[in-house]
Amino acid sequence: MSFDFRVTHSDGAARRGVLTTPHGVVETPAFMPVGTQGAVKGVTHRDLVSAGAEIVLSNTYHLYLRPGDDLIARRGGLHTFIGWDKPILTDSGGYQVFSLAARRTIDENGAKFRSHLDGSLHLLTPEKATDIQSQLGSDIAMVLDECLAYPATADATRASMERTLRWARRARERLSAIRASAAPDVRATNAGQAQFGIVQGGVYPELRQESAQQTVEIGFEAYAIGGLSVGEPIDLMYDVVAHTTPHLPRDRPRYLMGVGTPIDIVEAVSRGVDMFDCVLPTRNARNGQLFTSEGKLNIKNRQYAEDDRPPDPNCGCYTCRNFSRAYLRHLFVAGEINASTLNTLHNLNFYLDTLRGIRESLTFGRFQTFRDEFRVRTGSDA
Amino acid sequence: MSFDFRVTHSDGAARRGVLTTPHGVVETPAFMPVGTQGAVKGVTHRDLVSAGAEIVLSNTYHLYLRPGDDLIARRGGLHTFIGWDKPILTDSGGYQVFSLAARRTIDENGAKFRSHLDGSLHLLTPEKATDIQSQLGSDIAMVLDECLAYPATADATRASMERTLRWARRARERLSAIRASAAPDVRATNAGQAQFGIVQGGVYPELRQESAQQTVEIGFEAYAIGGLSVGEPIDLMYDVVAHTTPHLPRDRPRYLMGVGTPIDIVEAVSRGVDMFDCVLPTRNARNGQLFTSEGKLNIKNRQYAEDDRPPDPNCGCYTCRNFSRAYLRHLFVAGEINASTLNTLHNLNFYLDTLRGIRESLTFGRFQTFRDEFRVRTGSDA
Repeated sequence: MSFDFRVTHSDGAARRGVLTTPHGVVETPAFMPVGTQGAVKGVTHRDLVSAGAEIVLSNTYHLYLRPGDDLIARRGGLHTFIGWDKPILTDSGGYQVFSLAARRTIDENGAKFRSHLDGSLHLLTPEKATDIQSQLGSDIAMVLDECLAYPATADATRASMERTLRWARRARERLSAIRASAAPDVRATNAGQAQFGIVQGGVYPELRQESAQQTVEIGFEAYAIGGLSVGEPIDLMYDVVAHTTPHLPRDRPRYLMGVGTPIDIVEAVSRGVDMFDCVLPTRNARNGQLFTSEGKLNIKNRQYAEDDRPPDPNCGCYTCRNFSRAYLRHLFVAGEINASTLNTLHNLNFYLDTLRGIRESLTFGRFQTFRDEFRVRTGSDA
Repeated sequence: MSFDFRVTHSDGAARRGVLTTPHGVVETPAFMPVGTQGAVKGVTHRDLVSAGAEIVLSNTYHLYLRPGDDLIARRGGLHTFIGWDKPILTDSGGYQVFSLAARRTIDENGAKFRSHLDGSLHLLTPEKATDIQSQLGSDIAMVLDECLAYPATADATRASMERTLRWARRARERLSAIRASAAPDVRATNAGQAQFGIVQGGVYPELRQESAQQTVEIGFEAYAIGGLSVGEPIDLMYDVVAHTTPHLPRDRPRYLMGVGTPIDIVEAVSRGVDMFDCVLPTRNARNGQLFTSEGKLNIKNRQYAEDDRPPDPNCGCYTCRNFSRAYLRHLFVAGEINASTLNTLHNLNFYLDTLRGIRESLTFGRFQTFRDEFRVRTGSDA
């Protein structure tokens, strides 16, 4: 299968579609659980599949450092190495490198950084990020972009946005060379790998528009919206998304990187976004926070110590079908691994069920009703 | 269902049987995974069931301290609280209390100890251990016994063994009172709970014999062999087991507490033991040690970094069917939760498969062949 995307239903800016990749089909809007190091923390692949995950995200930064993209390529690529035969999206590694703060410097060439594992020095360039992802063989690779913190001035944002564009061109050229077998040092383990460009421009509408238009001009299989959910007010994020999606091709999937809460996802879908990833369901699960159809629930709270109800009475996941809040609280307080496992299982089911509900509502032309009810039901005031 | 045991096949001292408890049937010889705090670390209940677990062990010491047997009784007992509807055996709490060393004192009445959680002072007596387990409502409760370290003199061992006998009488009397509803402060959550006596006597054959005979005289639903696997040479442990089982009723299951490695289990079965529990498969899994049909395998070793083979080529568990040694090593080195999950899943499958193999061989009269081949195959020289 080669990369393809078809919109099958739409409702306002929101759309339902089918994304085809070398490792299978993904129904959109889609949520991608984050498997940083080639594993979604706390759940096995079969749990992901039974929860409805059709694609996962893995982090290039982590896999590059350990066990290394060379090793993974020798083992046949990331799918084979981790035993996951469905689609995988890899990020560029940029976000993690920029997060290293004092351990990295950035210039036009790329980012120099020291490994958080052993302090070793590395250079991440647009070309290198492309090479690594080619070796990993993900179905979707991301270009290296520059991530600015919020707030940033218009001038700084423009400069960064323009650098991201130059990097995007270099990344695309590098992928073309790899595809033409003109990069013999790179072992491309997935011939059908797609590459997504990333729109930057902070919270400035004209910069977002310019970034979108020029990124589309370079030409990628699809486009992502980056640099959001970095501290700006939620409503501003929604506005930027609403302003950006019209400048992206209707026939290509749109991916809002690193977003977000369940209501953020619903709101972004209503503004034309098709793909999402976020660590919230998995990370928060490990910290005892459950997302439910009745809002958030902190399982460690004493009020749940003798509560026989499931975490979410409207959820059909393994955790909710079998365990009480009282037991889950006990596991969390006792520091049991199984607290992470069972909480993560629920949160991922809740996220993936939410996306399933979104898609279903789009099929039947009731997305706006779904959105209104979701906000009321979960008590989301965003 | 009330407590029952039937031997269906035997081969020398080894036997196959069926144990019936209020929460279902257990085929013996049986291995009980350890769910210390009401959860077998790293695996969900459904994984246990699909691996073939028919009974789990939980630790009274831990559950008494947190969340407390009163809370568990209010929630309907341990089965309901943890969502496990199959048989459960609880220990008496004694072993953990004795392990507290400087934090406990023991006299004829029982053991005073300070909680490892908050330093609070507690008293564990034969009666209290019985009460707690009644409230937990396990299918099988153990009497409080005194555990001696190895080595111990014959005199010290006799004194301790005799105290264990006096404690056993007190525990049995207390359970009789509870059964007769003469202990109104105890909420017995499992009317059919059985109570096992424990044979002590260290490595002294005559003390083991005396302990066995007098414990049987008190009269319990079944009998355990305690105080082994505490540092004595393996062959001595085997000898003590061989010497003790003939003094236990043929029509009652025999439980060898806290044992052991796979070959220990095979050897104990050949000496007439029916039930086992041990933390080795779960704890060692979390430390990266896998038990396989080809012997032990330390997954963290560098030699596995690019090894595409499953941990155990002869195993059909989820881990072995889907993941390579290279990936499991990566997960372990990266400190991923999933390393614990997948390793534990395999080790429990290996243990439970071994027990299944033992039972099958007993059915067809080829246990001795199984035992010989098992020793050769796993390279066990014990």
